[in-house]
Order: sequence, then C-alpha cells, then structure tokens
Amino acid sequence: MEKGVVLLSGGMDSAVVAAIASDECRMYFMHIDYGQRTEKKEREVFLLLVDHFRPEGHMIISMPHFKKIGGSSLIDRSMSVPEGLSREGIPSTYVPFRNGNFLSAAVAWAEVIKALRVYIGATQEDSAGYPDCRQDFYRAFDKVIQKGTARKDIKIITPLIRKKKSEIVKWGMALQAPLHLTWSCYKNDRVACGRCDSCLRRRRAFQEAGLEDPIPYSL
Amino acid sequence: MEKGVVLLSGGMDSAVVAAIASDECRMYFMHIDYGQRTEKKEREVFLLLVDHFRPEGHMIISMPHFKKIGGSSLIDRSMSVPEGLSREGIPSTYVPFRNGNFLSAAVAWAEVIKALRVYIGATQEDSAGYPDCRQDFYRAFDKVIQKGTARKDIKIITPLIRKKKSEIVKWGMALQAPLHLTWSCYKNDRVACGRCDSCLRRRRAFQEAGLEDPIPYSL
Repeated sequence: MEKGVVLLSGGMDSAVVAAIASDECRMYFMHIDYGQRTEKKEREVFLLLVDHFRPEGHMIISMPHFKKIGGSSLIDRSMSVPEGLSREGIPSTYVPFRNGNFLSAAVAWAEVIKALRVYIGATQEDSAGYPDCRQDFYRAFDKVIQKGTARKDIKIITPLIRKKKSEIVKWGMALQAPLHLTWSCYKNDRVACGRCDSCLRRRRAFQEAGLEDPIPYSL
Repeated sequence: MEKGVVLLSGGMDSAVVAAIASDECRMYFMHIDYGQRTEKKEREVFLLLVDHFRPEGHMIISMPHFKKIGGSSLIDRSMSVPEGLSREGIPSTYVPFRNGNFLSAAVAWAEVIKALRVYIGATQEDSAGYPDCRQDFYRAFDKVIQKGTARKDIKIITPLIRKKKSEIVKWGMALQAPLHLTWSCYKNDRVACGRCDSCLRRRRAFQEAGLEDPIPYSL
C-alpha cells in the first residue's frame, strides 16, 4: 500500500479524513502549530488521534511566521473571534493562505518519505467562504507539485471537498471515526463556546444528521 | 507605487532582484531561516541588504519543519555537501519543495499588507537542476494564488528565470547591486569554500562576465 501524509488540525473533518485514509494508504500524520488560539487543545487532540489511528509516522511542526504576519482573528488576540454564522464575504477568521502553507510543508515531507498522497479535510460546500478551501485551489496545487517537485506524482486528496457537514458527520459515524475526541471551537480550548462560526456549523451538522454531538458546549 | 514582497536568501541573485524591484515597487523584504548550514551568515547579509536598500518593511521568519523533514545536505549535517558542479539529476543540496514553502509564506504576507508582487531570484537556465526553480512552477503558482487567496491578483515575479549567471552578474553591476555583501557558499559561513556547486557557479559567472568577484575564497 502506498504512503500518504494526512494533515490533521484536531477538528472533526480531519478525523474523518484520517478514517478514510486509513483504508487507502500507510498514514503519516502532520499537525501544524501556527500560533492559533486553540493550539494547546488541538495538539492534545492530535496526539489522541495518533493513539487512535496508529499511523506509521507523525510530526508536529511549527509555523511561527503566521503570528508575525497576522491579519486573522484566529491568531491576533487584539481581534475578536466573531459569534454567529459567517454569511457573506471572507470572515476575520480567515488565515491568509494558510492551506497553501500547510500543503507546502506536507508536500515537502511527502517528497522525502516517498508518499504519493497528501490528504486534507477541506470542505468547499459548507465552509466559511475561505478561498483556500475551494476545489479549484487544490487542483491548481496538483499542477504546482507536478511542476515544482522531484516527484511529480504526489496528489492532494480532498475527500470532503463537496460534502455538507452533516454528510461528513454521517460518514464519520459510519467509519467509526472518533468524533468524540475532536475539537472545532475557534475560541476556547477547554469547553467549546458553541457560538463561533465553527461551533455553529458543527452543531448544525449533527442536528441535520439526526445525531448527538458527543462534546460538551458552554451554552 | 504598488507594494512587493522580495524573498532574499542573502545570495547574489536575490540582491540583484532587490535592485530590480527597488525601481518597480515599495519593497518588503522577507528572509527565511530553514535550518540551513549557512543561516548565520545569510541572516547577517540579509540585514546588510536591509541597510543598503531600506525597504518599507522587513521580516525574518523561521521554518523549523525543514530540519524535521530532512532529506537535503544543506540541512542534514550527517550528509556532506558535494564538491564540484552538479551535472545530471537532482543533487543532494535540493531541499524538497523549499521554494513552494517560501512562496506560500511570502504570499500570506502579501495578502495581509496588500502587496501585488512577490519577487524571487530563481534561475532555471544556469541552476543546479532544482525542480522548484523552473519557470513552469512559478506560472502554476500564479494560478494557485488566483484560486486560493482573497487577493487573486498577486503575481510571482521571477526577473532572472531565463538569465545565465554571468548575465545576472552584469545586470547586478549595472544596477549597482551590492554584490560584495552577498554570500553564495553552501558550506561555510566565514570564508566561501570555492568548491561547492554554488561557489563554482558564482565564480564561473564572474569569470564569464569578465569581472572580479569581490568576495574572498579559501582556495
């Protein structure tokens, strides 16, 4: 079976992607600390997911430049994380070109360990409108890999890109993905706020799927 | 005048690119410490170039993940930097997808400061055969930016991509770029070895240009 690098934030989507990838490749997990508010919790979840899935390798890396660059309420503590669902335009939680940076690191690792796949749990349909979650972006990135690496055949795999969050919940449950371990809140790292865009999308997804979200909220 | 992020290693090519960019945009310099052998020297040169060019902003960022990922003799001290000109295939000095990672960070900064250009001193014609120095890679990256950022109009500018090293030396001299400050050696950070691929290409370039290289070598 070929090798695959799986990018994991600690969120629900990436745990479902890991469950999908576990049937398709020999997994190498990568988690990225980019100075986000909830990194402590995300890292804890990541290590629990490592325990759960037992990938062949795992790596936590730091990208301290995002904090220097700023421009996102997920990083800059002088900005506040908005409550409510984002509706139009690009919300302040957008981290400029974050997924471009994440994919670049994952592709570098894939080149060295000779992995042919890089998995990322991006969703276009039911997301906050981040430009780096669009399918077209990932297909353009495949081309960049083909032109700019020694191993031209590495592909970005986005199993969730066209899925609604409620479908992701159902798929995750069907695969017995450990959704109870995952963390979606943008704001808190102890009890999920339940009110930020990410909490609201997650709660709505479980509701639409007719299932109960196994994590507690501070509501 | 619009803003531009200029990626600078401390090498000759990036100093020439800065001299070119200084006529075309309001400059923001970015230098990246990726755990390379000669970072101490490169950083020193970068700060001298900041003094020389007086950009509107400058930033040194760290990418510690390259050291974890490994796979290159520029980073892994258990591998040796080869002597002589690289001729066929991809040499051990290749850092997997380094320029993909560098461009991603520069694009993130460009998004936040609203710069429309990202300059990089890559050369395809007279390089060591690194895949991330090919023109096609940069054009594919433009597409990734268009699809994956909130500001679709950021462009990667590669003024040297089709130039021979000797032409770069001549162009740099004509623009009064401070080539005496720059550092090309892969191996040493005090006196350039004169024998690694990068030193040899630089020395040959000055020779072909009929000019004297202003830096000393340990030959």
